[in-house]
Amino acid sequence: MLDVLLNHRSIRKYKDQPIPTDVLNEIFEAGCKASTTGNMQVYSIVNTTRIEIKEMLAPAHFNQKMILMAPNVLTFCADFNRFKKWCVQSDAIPGYDNFLSFFTAAIDALLVAQNVAVAAESKGLGICYLGTTTYNAEKIIEALNLPKGVVPVTTITLGWPDEDPQKVDRLPLKAILHQETYSDYTSDSISDLYRIKESLPENIQFVKDNEKESLAQVFTDVRYKKADNEFFSSMFLDVLKKQGFL
Amino acid sequence: MLDVLLNHRSIRKYKDQPIPTDVLNEIFEAGCKASTTGNMQVYSIVNTTRIEIKEMLAPAHFNQKMILMAPNVLTFCADFNRFKKWCVQSDAIPGYDNFLSFFTAAIDALLVAQNVAVAAESKGLGICYLGTTTYNAEKIIEALNLPKGVVPVTTITLGWPDEDPQKVDRLPLKAILHQETYSDYTSDSISDLYRIKESLPENIQFVKDNEKESLAQVFTDVRYKKADNEFFSSMFLDVLKKQGFL
Repeated sequence: MLDVLLNHRSIRKYKDQPIPTDVLNEIFEAGCKASTTGNMQVYSIVNTTRIEIKEMLAPAHFNQKMILMAPNVLTFCADFNRFKKWCVQSDAIPGYDNFLSFFTAAIDALLVAQNVAVAAESKGLGICYLGTTTYNAEKIIEALNLPKGVVPVTTITLGWPDEDPQKVDRLPLKAILHQETYSDYTSDSISDLYRIKESLPENIQFVKDNEKESLAQVFTDVRYKKADNEFFSSMFLDVLKKQGFL
Repeated sequence: MLDVLLNHRSIRKYKDQPIPTDVLNEIFEAGCKASTTGNMQVYSIVNTTRIEIKEMLAPAHFNQKMILMAPNVLTFCADFNRFKKWCVQSDAIPGYDNFLSFFTAAIDALLVAQNVAVAAESKGLGICYLGTTTYNAEKIIEALNLPKGVVPVTTITLGWPDEDPQKVDRLPLKAILHQETYSDYTSDSISDLYRIKESLPENIQFVKDNEKESLAQVFTDVRYKKADNEFFSSMFLDVLKKQGFL
């Protein structure tokens, strides 16, 4: 069982082969057993397979090829719409139009997403998370007809693997684990913790390919730039407002 | 393997028996294999076992008994502090003081939390998520000395189970799964989807115990009230500001 977790790799190439409905349902059933705040289940999963809808989703995900290639695109949403409708028709007055409720629903959705990912991998399927979901949430809302009270928080592409990538590197456990309370990092500990990552041949090549002086500069200047982060922050906050959470 | 996911129950009573360090490390290693945005690993886990620190955490979690009873309290944090320090000493200018970056780091932390939960359960351990983490994040920040750039997003109590609760009910899969795009709910579909939940003896008793007319009213009037949600929303947004993300 731990092997499934330990062997995780993101899979970005998929065979042209659908996933049987009973396998999908098993995965979703297992996914929904994840813990959920007060057992409210304030999330939804949208399972998209049709090419016309994938083509509407693709630009929101910067046309990453997995969207069109994977047989299934799963959009995980923070969802208070269903719960609020239930409240209203049960003579209960919902009070979930606020940021805390959005974040509660986002937690619910993300725990389910990871359970779905693990369940899928245990069946031999490959998955890839798309972080672009929160960048262009507005476009995803349009493509999937998400009503007020619903915000997409992550996306997983799902299919039978057609590649066998190496496992990704991770920082040593001591980098992310703090005993008792948080031990802040010193200049020396940072150097120590990132040394292996910086010395990997693929990362040295990555710095060279991007014509940068350090691996960190590839992140700050190329991959996750301040101006982009600020632009998409403002877009995402607008989405939270529009969907009724701010 | 799917059995581990399917058999999930929250465990709130624990034996007075520590978790061996090698078991814990296996769980954390498996946890950290979860997908992470751009392989940045912008999260931290604080593993608290000492009674003095648990006693500081307890009020933040409304003194839920699991905090003192569980041998290990794991606080999962969105963490850009480590990554930013690495950037600065690599002559890279970080641009992560914004809401999108907070949310990115929160996604990372929550996927790891769920992997840790699954890994722990596969070892026979019991877990319980504490949704109170975002209500009183400020108190947790104090208790655990979390620096700027770090925000606690969820907590798991962990230990050997000393109870055998029944599995919780979940809505039928069709309630949370949408095919192709989002199908909004009608009054009839809501009634249909919540019928089983409302008719469970324990939920009927729950309504009676709380002197309410419907199960939904127990949520809106007792458990997750509008005034509380709004109060804690404002507190949590203040924490995001103070920690440098808004």
